[in-house]
Formats: sequence, structure tokens, C-alpha cells
Amino acid sequence: MRIKAAEIELVMEKILLNRGCPTAHAAKVAKEMTRNSLEGTYSHGINRFPRLVAQIDEGLVDMGAEPLRMGGFGALENYDGRQGLGIVNAWICMERAIDLASIHGIGYVALRNTNHWLRAATYGYQACARGMAGICFSNTYTNMPAWGAKDVRLGNNPLVFAFPYRNGDILVDMAMSQYSYGSLEVAVLEGKRMPTAAGFDVRGNLTDDPKAVLESKRLLPAGFWKGSALSFGLDVFAAAVSLGDTVQAIGKKGSGERDLCQTFVAINFAAVAPGEKVEAIVRGAVEDLLASTPDGGPDPVVYPGQRMRATRDENLAKGIPVDARVWKEILAL
Amino acid sequence: MRIKAAEIELVMEKILLNRGCPTAHAAKVAKEMTRNSLEGTYSHGINRFPRLVAQIDEGLVDMGAEPLRMGGFGALENYDGRQGLGIVNAWICMERAIDLASIHGIGYVALRNTNHWLRAATYGYQACARGMAGICFSNTYTNMPAWGAKDVRLGNNPLVFAFPYRNGDILVDMAMSQYSYGSLEVAVLEGKRMPTAAGFDVRGNLTDDPKAVLESKRLLPAGFWKGSALSFGLDVFAAAVSLGDTVQAIGKKGSGERDLCQTFVAINFAAVAPGEKVEAIVRGAVEDLLASTPDGGPDPVVYPGQRMRATRDENLAKGIPVDARVWKEILAL
Repeated sequence: MRIKAAEIELVMEKILLNRGCPTAHAAKVAKEMTRNSLEGTYSHGINRFPRLVAQIDEGLVDMGAEPLRMGGFGALENYDGRQGLGIVNAWICMERAIDLASIHGIGYVALRNTNHWLRAATYGYQACARGMAGICFSNTYTNMPAWGAKDVRLGNNPLVFAFPYRNGDILVDMAMSQYSYGSLEVAVLEGKRMPTAAGFDVRGNLTDDPKAVLESKRLLPAGFWKGSALSFGLDVFAAAVSLGDTVQAIGKKGSGERDLCQTFVAINFAAVAPGEKVEAIVRGAVEDLLASTPDGGPDPVVYPGQRMRATRDENLAKGIPVDARVWKEILAL
Repeated sequence: MRIKAAEIELVMEKILLNRGCPTAHAAKVAKEMTRNSLEGTYSHGINRFPRLVAQIDEGLVDMGAEPLRMGGFGALENYDGRQGLGIVNAWICMERAIDLASIHGIGYVALRNTNHWLRAATYGYQACARGMAGICFSNTYTNMPAWGAKDVRLGNNPLVFAFPYRNGDILVDMAMSQYSYGSLEVAVLEGKRMPTAAGFDVRGNLTDDPKAVLESKRLLPAGFWKGSALSFGLDVFAAAVSLGDTVQAIGKKGSGERDLCQTFVAINFAAVAPGEKVEAIVRGAVEDLLASTPDGGPDPVVYPGQRMRATRDENLAKGIPVDARVWKEILAL
């Protein structure tokens, strides 16, 4: 079924308001979770809403909290998220990074004790919407072994590089595992194998069988040792600057995906580089990439972020595709 | 053969001085190229010295140039490298980023028209040595197809995340291709296959045969579509903020690997996070990672940057392993 974005947003907002969520926070969460689905990130859109409400009902998320400034020095600040709504905390911190960049040319905000920000790209687009480039990353619950290891001690720590571009922002949004658990589960339901190796089976062989990887819990880092190293590095950056929990500390607590650390960087490039020159440089790169000779495989050559617009336009026109069971579940909240 | 670091450094310095290189630049280049080999990055150490001298002799590198400030706004600045020595330009720009971070908490310096910086990790370690975290990246000559493409339009754009740690800095240094051309060439000489898929053969099949990939020129991006996207994103960041050449523009000129763009970010985290707390967070992450259960494969679990110290200590004690032909070639310069 397809449902209009405005209707979905209203339903979710009301559910949050009924639970005593501050008006501005309810509006923000409903808006961004709807937008995630609208723009094609279904895994981190309204499909996750029942889980968020469950966390609120269990008292794990403090809907009224906002980030508390712990320290600051010029363009660098760190905040305590006080277990607030992940979207609200992350949005406020990227907004602060953008404000710092307005003053200092760049802003760097580190956040601890926060909850899942849902879609990493959101905060990259947030910087782009204000004419700035953005870099952000988060740590996660333990969900991936290090390269050379069997047991799960790393997170798949998503990383975003976002650069504004008139015809559709450049938006690199990558988690450090080659595939998410969500995509493996979908493939199992559809009886499919993954397009490339997804992890190791229990005997330690690389496999594209999603069932075997779900069984072993040995997700493959993207780029093998490279994704493993970058995951670890991002975790150290995220936790150390915010004085928060690393992936290992989150994992040891065993209380699920909370107490996360995130980092938000905004780069006010327009202060040193004229807009029309920057636009020409980015357009040149995009046009050259899109002039590539296709390899005849299933995946078209696109620039990162390119496909979002078409999905959004289609979902705006026709409504957002929604699983009937999920929608029924939401209506009952 | 093994040669003491001090001897190698002196020989290279003299060769540069004999060509009219300013004293400080000759000393810097000789020191850092020696250190690259000393610390195990043989591919970007003294083995590259003959190529650098050839570029100098062809007039492609201006040994006397230093970066010229084009613009600045608070903690953000951009520079023109004026075809100077890659190591000198990069070092000066990271030094400037560190100075900016001393004042503003973070510093972001974008550099254009520069030459190969040799070892990306150098500039991460540079930040660590001054108690700061560092992020840096460079674009390169075209050497990798985009995901879904046959023809070479991306660079393997190296990316570094560096965080100081008492027992050996955390140093993530990754190029965006799964393997470098250099490592494929070494494997061919040794008659070996690569440990994992290295690219596509001319028929478009994934292969671990280095000869087949050298023939097709279809290097595999690390993480498939992920490394492809990140390569593109880093290129846009590097070129747009410095108003320099993207990988596509460098490739179109066809004049080799020059006119590169690089970015240097220093984060003065100590200004907002007490050193002993940060140290405890990093140590916790490292110790937990190293407590991983080995998977029985050939690669030990290490944290990124861990192995450098042992290599350096061995090479300091025994001398740096040098290919006799390379050394002969250098002595004849």
C-alpha cells in the first residue's frame, strides 16, 4: 500500500504527543522519519517507528531532553545527549556545527549519550541545505568482528560526506559493514543470495548466503581490513572527543543500542571559495562520472546521492510504500 | 641489503641540494622519505626517490615553491601549492591546520596544485605529534573505474584518520582501491594471486589474478560501490574547497599525477576533553579489540597503526631493507 507522506507524518506526530513528547520534538521526529521513507531509506524511516515508541515506553529515551554543552573551545564543542531522542539530538548538534562554521569557517561538535539518529544522511543534507559541506559519523552497538577475528567487537559506524550541489547534493552515506543485518534479513525472506560476499559462515568461509552470515554473526567489513580499521578509527574519534562510550563500552553494558557517540562537522566553504566556481568544479566531476562506459552489470553508474530525488518525487506523487502490517501496528500505538 | 636510515637520508638530501633545492626543503623531503621506509611504507619511501628526482629534472616540480594563501575565514583556509614538493606543501599545510586548531579548536586547510605527498599517514602522525587528531585526504590521477563502469575515471584517493595514543597512535590510512597497482605488480613478480578479489578481468569477471587486473585496468574499489562513492566524495571535497582540479580534470590533462588537491584537518580535542580521560577511552577500545578471538586466518587482529612501531624498531636497529638496484640507481643520481 501507499500512503501520503503528510498523513504518515501526522499519525506519528500524534502518537508522540499522546505520550507527552514536547511539541517541537514530536514534529521533528515525525517529519524526519517520514522524510527518510519518502526519500527511499525505508529501513530507517517509518518501519523503525514502532521500535522507537517501544524504547520510549520502556523509559530508555527521554523525549524532553536536549543536548547539554559540556565544553567548548572556538569552533570545537562537545555535548551530552542525556538519552534524548536521537533525531532531535543529532539535528541540534549539526545545527550548532553549522552555526559555528558560520562564525569560524568550520564547526565540529561531538555528542555522547545519545540514541540512534536513524538515517545518517539526514545530517549531511542538513548542512547542504544551509550551503555547507558536512561530515558526520556515529558509533553503534557491537555488530561486526574485526578483521582477523571471529567475535563481534566493532560497530558498523556509519560515515557521511555531504557536499551541496544544485542538481542534487553529493551524499556519501556508508556503514562499515558491506551489508546491514536488515538487508540480509530481507534477502533471506526473498530467498536470495547477496550480490557479493556478505560475511563468513560458521566454518570461516566467505559466503554470499545471508542465512549463513546471520547464523555466524560474522558480517564482512566493507573492504575487508579497510572497513575494519575505519570502523575502529571512527569509534575512537566519536567517543574520545565527546568523552562517551566506545562501541566496546556500549557492547559490554549489554543494554542495547544506546549511549551512542556522534560527530558533526560543517564546512563553510563558501567563505573561501566563490559559489559559481565551486558549482562548476562539482558539475565537472559529476558529468565526467556519468559519462562512464557501463560495465553491463546490474548497477548503473550514479553519483552518490543521485537516486534520492527520483525516489522522493515518485513517493511524493504516489504516496510512500508502506508495509500493511507495519502501518496497522503504528495505528495501534 | 640493509642500510642505516641516517646514511640514506644524507644521500637523498645531498642529491636534492646538488639540484639547487632550498636547504630546509631538501632536509624535509629526505627525512620524510627515509622515515616512510623506516616505518615500513616501502612503496612510498626511498623506492620513489628516483621518480621524484626525474620529475624535478623534467621541471614538473618546483623545489623552491611554498603554498600561497588564497583565502581564509577563521579556521578554514585554502592554498595554492604552486607545483611545489608534495611533502613540503603537505607538511606546511598540516602545520597550518594544527596552528589554526590551537586558536580555534579545529583547523581545516585545503590545498591545490600540489604534488604527491608520498605517504598519507605522515600528516596524520604530524597532528598526533602535536597532541591533536588529524583527518586528511588527497585526490590522485585517474586509476579506478566507478562502480558499474568499465573505464577509469576515479582516483584511489587516500583517506587518513589519526588519533594520538601513548602506546602507538591510532592511524587509519586507506586508499579507495582494495589493492594498489604497486601491490598487484609485486604479486605478479612473485607469481602469487591476491588474498581477495582485486578487480575485474577483461571479460568483466571478479578475479584475484593480479595479471588479469593489470591487463583490464579495472581495479576494485574497496567495499565495491562504497569505495567508489567515497572516492568520488573525497575528490569533490578536496577540489571544490581548494578550487583545484578534480580527478577527472587531472586525468583529462593527461600530464600525469600532478595538480593534486589535498585537505588537512586538525582537531584540538584536548581543549574540550581532559587527556587522562581520553587516554582511558582509547586504551579501553584498543584493549577490547586486541582481546578478539582470532579467526585462524593469516591476518592477526591489530589496531590500525599498531604494527608500525615494531617495523620501525627493527629497521632502526638493523637498517632499512633496500633493493640493491634502487640503491645503485639513487647513488648515480
